[in-house]
Amino acid sequence: MRSFQLGIDVGGTKVLGVAVDPDDPSTLLAQHRAATPGDVDSLVEVLTETVETLRDEVTAAGHVPTSIGVGVPGVLDRLGVLRGAPNLRCAIDEPVQRRLRERVGGSVAFENDANCALWAESRLGAGVGVSDVMFVALGTGIGGAVMVGGELQVGARGFAGEPGHMVVAADGVPCPCGRRGCWERYASGAGLAWLARQEAIAGRAARIAELAGDPGAILGAHVTAAADEGDPDALAVFERFAGWVALGIGNLMNILDPELVIIGGGLATHSRHYLDRVRDLLPAEVLGAGSHRPTSVVMAALGPEAGAVGAALLADSPLRRD
Amino acid sequence: MRSFQLGIDVGGTKVLGVAVDPDDPSTLLAQHRAATPGDVDSLVEVLTETVETLRDEVTAAGHVPTSIGVGVPGVLDRLGVLRGAPNLRCAIDEPVQRRLRERVGGSVAFENDANCALWAESRLGAGVGVSDVMFVALGTGIGGAVMVGGELQVGARGFAGEPGHMVVAADGVPCPCGRRGCWERYASGAGLAWLARQEAIAGRAARIAELAGDPGAILGAHVTAAADEGDPDALAVFERFAGWVALGIGNLMNILDPELVIIGGGLATHSRHYLDRVRDLLPAEVLGAGSHRPTSVVMAALGPEAGAVGAALLADSPLRRD
Repeated sequence: MRSFQLGIDVGGTKVLGVAVDPDDPSTLLAQHRAATPGDVDSLVEVLTETVETLRDEVTAAGHVPTSIGVGVPGVLDRLGVLRGAPNLRCAIDEPVQRRLRERVGGSVAFENDANCALWAESRLGAGVGVSDVMFVALGTGIGGAVMVGGELQVGARGFAGEPGHMVVAADGVPCPCGRRGCWERYASGAGLAWLARQEAIAGRAARIAELAGDPGAILGAHVTAAADEGDPDALAVFERFAGWVALGIGNLMNILDPELVIIGGGLATHSRHYLDRVRDLLPAEVLGAGSHRPTSVVMAALGPEAGAVGAALLADSPLRRD
Repeated sequence: MRSFQLGIDVGGTKVLGVAVDPDDPSTLLAQHRAATPGDVDSLVEVLTETVETLRDEVTAAGHVPTSIGVGVPGVLDRLGVLRGAPNLRCAIDEPVQRRLRERVGGSVAFENDANCALWAESRLGAGVGVSDVMFVALGTGIGGAVMVGGELQVGARGFAGEPGHMVVAADGVPCPCGRRGCWERYASGAGLAWLARQEAIAGRAARIAELAGDPGAILGAHVTAAADEGDPDALAVFERFAGWVALGIGNLMNILDPELVIIGGGLATHSRHYLDRVRDLLPAEVLGAGSHRPTSVVMAALGPEAGAVGAALLADSPLRRD
């Protein structure tokens, strides 16, 4: 009989739960998927159902489920309460973890989803053996996580690791967070779409506009689809996108100079369209780096389960406590 | 008979040396000042002379000088070799510390000047008892230092702590470092002058232009002089300056969320013209911070000797070794 930890990754569209053996975390005993609901009550309901389903499966297999970790796409304070979640507005300032604990009992730890993913990459993936790492998750927005000396940094109030809301273009594109010109307005899926829309509105990027039906309806997925076809306009958009990715990573390197930068998130699967270019551009972005070996920039090695696995692995020794 | 450590701060214009008792570092046994020369050979000469003068004084007083620490305004690699120093071009890629050691013997450790100043503030000044601190030195440019868990972060290659070269205005003002729109183009003494020149060229800021003799000749010192007189145009320039300071500190907080931000550098003495405004603006710059107590932003507590004192205190346990 083995002990299992449960990990749940709450995304903007789906909730993924896994059961993980902490001594052999690459093996998933059970998985459970559900759609992300639009209000707090329903979210607590879905999380409860996920925990109960996974527990039933693990128990039926003769094992003992222990701690529960939940990764969420937002900023948590030191107590684990969500304080900002642009893609999950329903849960802001609601002590979801306390309500979940009341429903399912036992230990429930909440953590930022990018922190969870970096923790998993650090244990099992692209970050094994490296103690100073920055993780940037290029998805609809940009998530981030900072590891220094082998420890995830949550910051004095819990708000560390949000490089997506670093302003890189003062007076630039307005961001839902309230600032203007945040990095995630340019170097995320939303940024990719924005870059392509500028082209399409100027009468270029015909194939991307055709795939979208209308220049104003262009999404990141239309750009990646056109790039996959070899469309030169889409590849040119990715070239500009790579410039924004390199600019932001360069900023992070000038501040922390990590040993390794791991790129994850939904756009990780399209890295062939921008990774080489990012690597080419980076040396010029970093003060003093011209004469030195460049920082390694690699893609995340784990699949879409990284966040849930990391949440499970962090469940037993949470970074935040209420 | 006590042991003393020697610390030398190499600035853009002057070289300051001090002798410090590590057990009572607020007492300076000796000080020595010289002008910063323009070439490497002369720099080694001035450093040698500074060490010898301080040694003679300390020895004459019956004490024993031990290690030597030198703070320099630039980026050093892990071996202590300068790899970038916009205000000290002469020494780039020259192993000055090896040449100094050949001249004066004993242990010689080089460190970034902002790291030295933060170390001193952390031991004796505004950062006592705080383990997660960011230091920004607003001078001609912007220096920086990052302390996590009580340890100064030099980064994988030694290049950490250069927030001044974080791009905050893509395609903005060109920076000597090669990027455009670096934070230090806006939130430093050079930035203050640039902001005022924009006003003066547009026919505003008459008093500042008068002090400078010509709009194109405006320096930061002219803006502070006019602000000290109560000139409303100069105070308006400082208002915009505060916006840039808050923007960059906000970026750093979104990445690391330190417990404390210490502002030092030459512009620290003019904080009455911008500090309150920076504090007012910061909550809106930080994701999730609206509902929470703000990070403390304070001015450096030590005087202009902080860099030299910190260099002396770091001399015995250097962060970099060749």
